[in-house]
Amino acid sequence: MIIVMKPTAGQAEIDHVVEKVEAVGCKTTLLEGTNRKVIAVIGDKRDIPPEYWDTIPGVEKAVPILTPYKLASREVKKSDTEIKINDQVLGGKKIGVIAGPCAVESQDQINFIAEGVKKAGAIALRGGAFKPRTSPYSFQGLKEEGLEYLARAREATGLAIVTEILSPEHIDLVSSYVDVLQIGTRNMANFLLLEAVGKCNKPVILKRGMSATLDEFLLAGEYILSHGNPNVILCERGIRTFETHTRFTLSLSIVPHLKLLTHLPVIVDPSHGTGVRELVAPMSRGAIAVGADGLILEVHKDPEKSFVDGPQALTIESFEKLMKESGAVAESIGREI
Amino acid sequence: MIIVMKPTAGQAEIDHVVEKVEAVGCKTTLLEGTNRKVIAVIGDKRDIPPEYWDTIPGVEKAVPILTPYKLASREVKKSDTEIKINDQVLGGKKIGVIAGPCAVESQDQINFIAEGVKKAGAIALRGGAFKPRTSPYSFQGLKEEGLEYLARAREATGLAIVTEILSPEHIDLVSSYVDVLQIGTRNMANFLLLEAVGKCNKPVILKRGMSATLDEFLLAGEYILSHGNPNVILCERGIRTFETHTRFTLSLSIVPHLKLLTHLPVIVDPSHGTGVRELVAPMSRGAIAVGADGLILEVHKDPEKSFVDGPQALTIESFEKLMKESGAVAESIGREI
Amino acid sequence: MIIVMKPTAGQAEIDHVVEKVEAVGCKTTLLEGTNRKVIAVIGDKRDIPPEYWDTIPGVEKAVPILTPYKLASREVKKSDTEIKINDQVLGGKKIGVIAGPCAVESQDQINFIAEGVKKAGAIALRGGAFKPRTSPYSFQGLKEEGLEYLARAREATGLAIVTEILSPEHIDLVSSYVDVLQIGTRNMANFLLLEAVGKCNKPVILKRGMSATLDEFLLAGEYILSHGNPNVILCERGIRTFETHTRFTLSLSIVPHLKLLTHLPVIVDPSHGTGVRELVAPMSRGAIAVGADGLILEVHKDPEKSFVDGPQALTIESFEKLMKESGAVAESIGREI
Amino acid sequence: MIIVMKPTAGQAEIDHVVEKVEAVGCKTTLLEGTNRKVIAVIGDKRDIPPEYWDTIPGVEKAVPILTPYKLASREVKKSDTEIKINDQVLGGKKIGVIAGPCAVESQDQINFIAEGVKKAGAIALRGGAFKPRTSPYSFQGLKEEGLEYLARAREATGLAIVTEILSPEHIDLVSSYVDVLQIGTRNMANFLLLEAVGKCNKPVILKRGMSATLDEFLLAGEYILSHGNPNVILCERGIRTFETHTRFTLSLSIVPHLKLLTHLPVIVDPSHGTGVRELVAPMSRGAIAVGADGLILEVHKDPEKSFVDGPQALTIESFEKLMKESGAVAESIGREI
Repeated sequence: MIIVMKPTAGQAEIDHVVEKVEAVGCKTTLLEGTNRKVIAVIGDKRDIPPEYWDTIPGVEKAVPILTPYKLASREVKKSDTEIKINDQVLGGKKIGVIAGPCAVESQDQINFIAEGVKKAGAIALRGGAFKPRTSPYSFQGLKEEGLEYLARAREATGLAIVTEILSPEHIDLVSSYVDVLQIGTRNMANFLLLEAVGKCNKPVILKRGMSATLDEFLLAGEYILSHGNPNVILCERGIRTFETHTRFTLSLSIVPHLKLLTHLPVIVDPSHGTGVRELVAPMSRGAIAVGADGLILEVHKDPEKSFVDGPQALTIESFEKLMKESGAVAESIGREI
Repeated sequence: MIIVMKPTAGQAEIDHVVEKVEAVGCKTTLLEGTNRKVIAVIGDKRDIPPEYWDTIPGVEKAVPILTPYKLASREVKKSDTEIKINDQVLGGKKIGVIAGPCAVESQDQINFIAEGVKKAGAIALRGGAFKPRTSPYSFQGLKEEGLEYLARAREATGLAIVTEILSPEHIDLVSSYVDVLQIGTRNMANFLLLEAVGKCNKPVILKRGMSATLDEFLLAGEYILSHGNPNVILCERGIRTFETHTRFTLSLSIVPHLKLLTHLPVIVDPSHGTGVRELVAPMSRGAIAVGADGLILEVHKDPEKSFVDGPQALTIESFEKLMKESGAVAESIGREI
Repeated sequence: MIIVMKPTAGQAEIDHVVEKVEAVGCKTTLLEGTNRKVIAVIGDKRDIPPEYWDTIPGVEKAVPILTPYKLASREVKKSDTEIKINDQVLGGKKIGVIAGPCAVESQDQINFIAEGVKKAGAIALRGGAFKPRTSPYSFQGLKEEGLEYLARAREATGLAIVTEILSPEHIDLVSSYVDVLQIGTRNMANFLLLEAVGKCNKPVILKRGMSATLDEFLLAGEYILSHGNPNVILCERGIRTFETHTRFTLSLSIVPHLKLLTHLPVIVDPSHGTGVRELVAPMSRGAIAVGADGLILEVHKDPEKSFVDGPQALTIESFEKLMKESGAVAESIGREI
Repeated sequence: MIIVMKPTAGQAEIDHVVEKVEAVGCKTTLLEGTNRKVIAVIGDKRDIPPEYWDTIPGVEKAVPILTPYKLASREVKKSDTEIKINDQVLGGKKIGVIAGPCAVESQDQINFIAEGVKKAGAIALRGGAFKPRTSPYSFQGLKEEGLEYLARAREATGLAIVTEILSPEHIDLVSSYVDVLQIGTRNMANFLLLEAVGKCNKPVILKRGMSATLDEFLLAGEYILSHGNPNVILCERGIRTFETHTRFTLSLSIVPHLKLLTHLPVIVDPSHGTGVRELVAPMSRGAIAVGADGLILEVHKDPEKSFVDGPQALTIESFEKLMKESGAVAESIGREI
C-alpha cells in the first residue's frame, strides 16, 4: 500500500502514520517527492480497508497495491477450476448451457421444456421456485411445489437442476431437491446468504450484482470460498447503466478480464442481461466468442403465456437454433458446446 | 396502459391482443395512427408487469400509465405521514437527526457518542451491531453484544436506538433491543427481509439500493406497507454512477421528487452518500434545503480509530458545528432541527 | 403520441390540450381510463419534442410512439447500406478491419504499420493527425504533417486512409488528404461538425458519444444523413459506466440492436472501448460474433513508445494473431474478414 | 507516481522501467514489497499520462500521485477567484443568479423576461441564439438575429448577457454582442473551442460534460486557463446516470468538492440538471446550501409556448418566489443573493 500525505503534512503527522503502520505489523519507507511525501507500506494486510488509513491526520489518500481477494485469485491457484455438476463438468473445453423457464409453473410445463432443452444440448435445467420480484403484487413462485416439479423433471431427463435460493433458512429445503444453488443479482451482497452457501457443498452460481465492480464481484465469490465451498461459478448478467434500449447492459468485457484474474469458471446470462428476445442469440454467440465457460438462458414452452419475464424467453425452436449457431462459434475458438 | 403494435402487425394479431386484454378484465380502444396501430387498455391492473404484454406476437411495446405502487402513493394518502420514534416524531416540521458510529465497538465508545450527539440535538442513536462488509476478512460487528451496548446507551441518554438488520431470522433478537430497524442499501431488494419487517411493528428506515430507480425504491417501501407496517422512512444514501471523486453520488433531487409522489418521510445519509468527511456538512445543509425530513450521520469518538468507515465520520465537535449550521438552514425554510 | 393527463385535470385543461394538438395539424381521441384521462394524438410530428407537451397545464407526461429519427431507420430503407471505401465495401458479407496507430508520429512509423496491417488483412489505415486530448499538456498530434504521412502511406500500400476531424474549418484540408472522416466520441453531439460532414461526400465513421443513448446516436447519424451524405458508419466505442476495470464499458448489445433498427453499417472499437491490451482480441471476436460489420483497432510498431494511448495498442504480431482468430469466428457465422 | 510491477517481473524489466523513468528526467526508488515490487517515481511530470507507463513490459499499473491540472488548482492559487461580469462580481459573498429563456424567440419575449428577472434580482440575462439540438429537425435558434435581441435587452435593462457559443468561428461575432460566453455540456471536451475561448478575454461559463469526471472537468477549465483567459466559471448541470425520474442527476456534491480543489467560482444549473419544473426551486436552495457561487436558471414568459426546453422553465412569478426562498437560504449560510 502507498500512503500519500497532504502537501501540508508535517513531520509529526508522518511520524504518527509510521507508528500506526508499524502497529499492524508492516514496514515503511518514506519517499520525498517533488510536491508530496509518500509512505510506502510493505507487508500483506489486505484485510485492513484502505479507507482506514484515510482517516489519519495528514493523509491525503491510501492506494492499495494488492487485490482485496486471495482465494479467488489466479495468484493463489493458476489452473482453471472445473466444477462437477452431476455427470457434467463446467469450466473445461466444453461450454455448458443451462436452460429453462424463469419460473416453474406446472409439471407439464417443466417436463416439456426439460426434454426440449436436453435434446438441444443443455447440460442442466434452470427454473425458479422462489422468485424475487420487484413488486409485492407480482407472482412470487410456486415454492416447494416448484422444487418437486423440478426434481421430477430431473428424474425424467437426467438433467441437473439449478434454482435460485433467497435466504439461509431455505438451504436445507432447496438443497434436498436441487443440484446447483443460484444467488441472484439482488443477493450478491447478501453476505449472510453467501456465508450460508459457503458452508454447503453444492455448486453455486453467483450472479454479479447489477452495480457490482469487478473487485466486489470477486469478493462476493471470496465469501463463499472462504467458508469452505470451492465450487463457485461466476455469472455476468448485465449491469445498470444509463442505457435504456436494453433492460441492463451486458458487460461482456468482464468475462475475459475475470478469466485473467481468477481461476473460477465464468458464465453469462444474455436473457436477463438484455431483456430483449431478439438480442439473446447474438449475445450468446458474443459471450462464447469472448471466452465464457457457459450460458444460462431462459427457454419457455410458449413465451406468451409465461407468468414472468416473458419478453426475453426463447421457444424450444429458437433455442435449438441458438445452440447450433453457438456451437459453430464455440468450434471456431477451439471449444465445443 | 397503451399497447403499441408493430408496423407489420395485421388484424389477426390485433384481435389476439384484444382477446388477451379482455381476458384479464380490461377494456380496449383501438387507435389507428399514421404509422402504427395502438391499443389503449382501460382498467387498473398494475399487478401485471408491462413486460407481460411485450411477449404477445405483433406487440412492439407496452407503455404503463399508472405508477406500479399504490399504498406508498400520495394518490392514496394525501397528507404527510408522521412516524413516532419513542417520544419523537419524524416527518413533521422538525427535522430529525439520527447520529452515531458506523459500528458499535464498546460500551464506553457508544455511551460517549450517545451523550455527545444527544447534547447536540440528535433525536436517535445509530450504531451497527451486524455489519454487512464487502470483504469476508473485514470486521463484521459485535452482534448481540453490540445490541446490549446500544440498549444501555438508551438507558443512559433516553435516545431511541436505530440499527441495521440483515436477515429475517434476526428480527426477534434485534427488535427486543432496538426501536427502529434499518434496511441497508444492499438489502433494499431482499424481498423476504422486506416482508419480514412488514410484519413487525417497529419503524423501518429503508435505504435506497445503490442502483435502484425511484419506482423500485417506492416498490420496496410498498412491500413493507403491504405486509401491514405503515411506519416506513425512506433514505437516500447515494447511487452508483461513473463519478469517483465521491464513493457514491448523493442524488438530492430524489428527495423533493419523492415528496411529490409519496406521503412517507424522506431522510438523507450524507456520510455514506459521499464517503468524504469534508463533504458531510455541506451535503447535510443541502439535504435540508431540498426538503429532507431528517439526516442520518456517522459520528465517532475518534474517527481515526474507527473499525469501519472512518473517512466519512465526524467528531462530536464537528457534529455540533454541523447541527448549528444545519439548524440555520432549517430555519430559513421554515423548519427546525 | 399519447398525452397522459394528471388525475386532477378538468375538462377545460383537456379542451386546451386538444386545441394545441389540432393547432399543429394532428387529430385526437380521448380515452377515459379508470384513474386517468389520456389523449391519443394521431399524426406524424416527430419534429416536435415530447417535452413540448409536458408544459401544458394539466399534462402529466407525453409518451412518443414513433422513433425520433427517420432516414436512419429500417422503416424507410429495409436493405443494409453498403459503403464504398475506395476499392473496398463496408456493410456486406466481408467484415472490414481498419487498423493503425492512435497518433501518426513519423513517416517511418506509419509506413511500417501500414504495411503490417495490410499484409494481415486490414482494409484501411487509421491514424490521428489532430488529436483531442483531455489534458492541454498532452501531445496534440502532428496536424497537416501527419496528414501528409498518411497520404504517402496510402501511396505505398493502397490502403484507404481514415482520420479524425475536429472542426468544420478543417474539412477542406483533411478531405484533400484522406478517404474517410471520423467523428470522435467527444464530438458526436457537435452538431455543427455533423452538419459540415453531412455536406461533404466522404464516408463518415461516427463514434458513439460515451454517454449517448441509442436514440441520440441514431439522431447524430440522422444529422449527417439529413444534410445529404448517405455514407454513415456507426461505431460503438464504449460507454461511461460505474465500471473501472476497463476504461469504458464496451456495450456489444447495441450492435445487434442497431442492426434491427437501422440499415447503416455498425463497427466496433475494442481498443478504446476497453483500454486494456489483453481484452482487445477477445472483444474483437465478441464484436464479430454479435454481428458487427467491422472493427477499428489500434496497432503500433512498438506500443511501449507510443506517444498516446499505448496500453490498448497491439503489435503487428498480435494483430496478425487477432485477425486469424477473428477470421475463424467470422466464418462460423457465415462471414469473412 | 508509483509504478507497480507484475508479480512475474524480473530484474531486466525493472531495470528497463528505471531507464525509461530516468530518460524523462525523474528519479526512482525501488520498494520490495511482500508480493510485488514497486518503483516510486520522484519528479513532477504530470504531462505524461499514466497510461504511457502501463505499456512497458512487466508493469502492472501506474498510479499518479499529483492532480493532472495545475493552474486550476488551489495549490497554485489559494484565494477564491472573483470574476467581473460588467458591474457585477461572481465568486464573492454575493450569490449571482443568471436567468433567462432557453432560446431567444423575439425582442418582446426577451425584453419582457429581462425586465422580470432584473426586478427579481438576477445579475445577468441568459438566452440561446445558437442552439445545439439532439434532433436535426428541431428549432436551432435565431442565430445573429437572436444576438441582436439580446444586445437590445441589455440596453433596456443594464443586465450583462450570457449566451452559448458552439464553434471557434463564431467567437468574433458572438463576442461583439455578449458579455459572457457559455460552453455547453456537449462541448466541454471540444478542445478547439476551449482553446479559442482561452484566447479571448470574455468570462466563460464552462458547463460540465454530462459524463465528465471531476478531473476531466478541471482539465477542461485548465485548457481555457492555459491559453490565457483566467475568467473561468465552472457549472454543474447534471450528469448521466441510470436515474430516469429526472432528465439528468444533478450532482451537488461536486460543488463543495470543487471548492476544496480549485479557486474558480462554481455555479449550478438546476433547470437542465433536473428537467422537471417542480424540482427547480428546491434544487436551487440545495445548490446554495452546499456552497454554489451562483445559479443559472431558465425563465420564460409563458413556459407553455416556449420553442425549446419548456418543462423545466419557470414563469416570472415562480422565479420571484424562488429568489426570495433562495435568498433566505443564502442568508442562513452568511451569504446574500
